[in-house]
Formats: sequence, C-alpha cells, structure tokens
Amino acid sequence: MYKLYDFALSGNCYKIRLLLTQLNLPFEKIAVNIVDQETHSPDFLQKNPNGKVPVLETESGVFLTESNAILTYLADGTAFFPRDRLEQTEILKWLFFEQSSLGANLSRPRFWISVAKQAEQFASLIAYHQRLGNAALKVMNEHLTQHPFLVGERYTIADIANYAYTHVANQGGYDMSQYPAIAHWCDRVSSQPNYISIHP
Amino acid sequence: MYKLYDFALSGNCYKIRLLLTQLNLPFEKIAVNIVDQETHSPDFLQKNPNGKVPVLETESGVFLTESNAILTYLADGTAFFPRDRLEQTEILKWLFFEQSSLGANLSRPRFWISVAKQAEQFASLIAYHQRLGNAALKVMNEHLTQHPFLVGERYTIADIANYAYTHVANQGGYDMSQYPAIAHWCDRVSSQPNYISIHP
Repeated sequence: MYKLYDFALSGNCYKIRLLLTQLNLPFEKIAVNIVDQETHSPDFLQKNPNGKVPVLETESGVFLTESNAILTYLADGTAFFPRDRLEQTEILKWLFFEQSSLGANLSRPRFWISVAKQAEQFASLIAYHQRLGNAALKVMNEHLTQHPFLVGERYTIADIANYAYTHVANQGGYDMSQYPAIAHWCDRVSSQPNYISIHP
Repeated sequence: MYKLYDFALSGNCYKIRLLLTQLNLPFEKIAVNIVDQETHSPDFLQKNPNGKVPVLETESGVFLTESNAILTYLADGTAFFPRDRLEQTEILKWLFFEQSSLGANLSRPRFWISVAKQAEQFASLIAYHQRLGNAALKVMNEHLTQHPFLVGERYTIADIANYAYTHVANQGGYDMSQYPAIAHWCDRVSSQPNYISIHP
C-alpha cells in the first residue's frame, strides 16, 4: 500500500490525496507537521532532501517527491493523464504553470495569513506574491471562460494541480469574486466522482 | 522548421536553444524583448496568454509554452528523456524542483541586478529570493556530490533545466564557491556533445 507523508492543510498534499482517492488506490497517511519543522528532521530529510511534503512511498520503498511529478506517476496510463504526446505536453504545461506562476503565489500568502497568523510581519511579501498570483489567476480565468477544464475539455491532473491552492486562495487574501470562470470550474471539479474536500 | 520566440538573456529560452541544438533540430529564432514588454503585446499574448518566453511554434502551427514542458515534448523518445516510468518521474521531479525551488529564486535576482540594474530598489526581494535559492542550491550540491548527473548517472533534460539559471547564478549575487559539486557538474554539462553557451 502507498504511504503518504502528509500535512492536512497543504494544498500540495491534498493534490495527492484527491488523485489517490479518485483512482481508488488505498493509502496510509503519515502526518508531518510543517509548522513544527518536522520536514527538516534528519529522518524526514532521508526521504526528501528538499525538506518538503508530500512524499509518496511506493510499495517497493521508493520515495517520490514534488507533488506534480507524483501526479504524473500515479495517473500514468489513466484518463487523468492521457498518453497522446501533444495532450501530455499541454497537461505538463499547466502543471509547470502551477509551479512557476500560481502555486507559491497563492500558498505563501495563505500560509502567512491563515496558518502562521503573521500577516502583518509579512505584509510586503504577501503583496508581492498577490500581484503575481492575480496575474496568473487572470490568465486561468480567461482560459476557463472558453473551456470547461484546463486541457482537452475533460478533467485531468492539470485540473487537480491547479485546483489545490486556487479553491482556497481566499484564505491568502485573494478576492476571488473577480474570477467567475474559475468559480464555475471549481464547481465542476468538486462534482467529479470520488471528490474529497481538502478538510478531512 | 521550429520557430522559437526567444530572449537571448533568458535562461528559460536557453534551455530550448540548447536542447534543439543537441538534438540537431533546426530552428528559427524570433527575438522578443522582455525588457520592452514585448511579451505583453496583443500579438504575443495570442501565442502565450501568460505573456512569457520561450514559446515554441511547431511546424503544424501549435504554440508550446512553459520551458520545461517544451523540453519534455522535444526530448520524447530520446536518451534525454528515457521512457522508463520511474526514471521519467525522477526527471520530472527535478524539472518541478527547478520551477518550484530554484529557477525564479535565481532568475529574479539576476534580472534585477544584471539585466534591469535595479539592485537597490529590489534589495529586500533579492534577499528573500536568495535565501530560498541558496537552500535549493544546497540540496542540489549535496545530490551532486554523490551523482555525476541529476538522474540515472547520465545527462538528461533534468540537467538542462537546472543548469540554465544555475551556471549564471553569480549574476544574481550568488556566491557559487560554496557549491563545489555544482561547479564540477557544470563542467560536465558544458563538455556534452553539441553544447552551446547561453551567449550566442
């Protein structure tokens, strides 16, 4: 059985919980508290030298890291990651978009505001990330005015990856009422079979 | 023939120039000046709504974006991106590592210091990114003390992606003498067949 080293509030961990559940793959959750720096213990760094969750341990004892790489691994050969070369490239494009333009810009303000409760101390960095994050959300919103899902008119790991932090972006001070197409897409994602919420 | 919408100083564009050259694929370069905001012209936004280079136009007129997604597309079926599932996942892990932990932390200080010449104005953001970037370089350096290349003991697109900004990180104020294993790896990368430098 898969073992998922997991932090309940992390959107990156939620991506993996959601896909494993939608693929009907059983897994054991091992809680790792990032606020208490458990990801920097010598034991955890053996599993991921980059000191981040999620880590997925396979049945053969391999430790997989980087949430979006784990998504491609688990979804390989399924409808969540079709094998057509151009379609895979489009899905990977949105996975890299998530890491380069969206994810951290949503997750860091959310962490400082809603997890660590240090909004004042990090006010200028929050504003910096929000400016970049709003630019990315605008791009996504415009795409979603034309398409029901991010790639190929159906639900794939591109949606899972980008949904994880977007649907809780308001916790990072984002005014999501500016992005109606994203709101409709979030509704489509949350009506998929075997959907689970980020909160257990 | 491929058309590459390209900014000469961009590490993300250099990744694509390097791989196309090493694959012996001819391509036409179309210069786009990001300093002059040419990536935000209506014409360019038709090609990439996210307003970033590189964009690779295929012979059939498809516009591919996100440098690391383009690398996977071009390297598909070659030794630069072997098809073994676990090895692909490891390569993708390092491509996502580059986007999530390394790339922007190296490229933004480099842009503010060496391209835009606005080091003073952006001093606190430079320090913020350098703190994160040094943490990522430390992880890479430790990995490279044990391995000649990032994945599977041979040169792949994982190396190309991470090399692009790392080998010019000093231009972003990084003291690379702290990372001797990275320096040796850079030497191994630059001795690969058909290597080209970032400067034409």
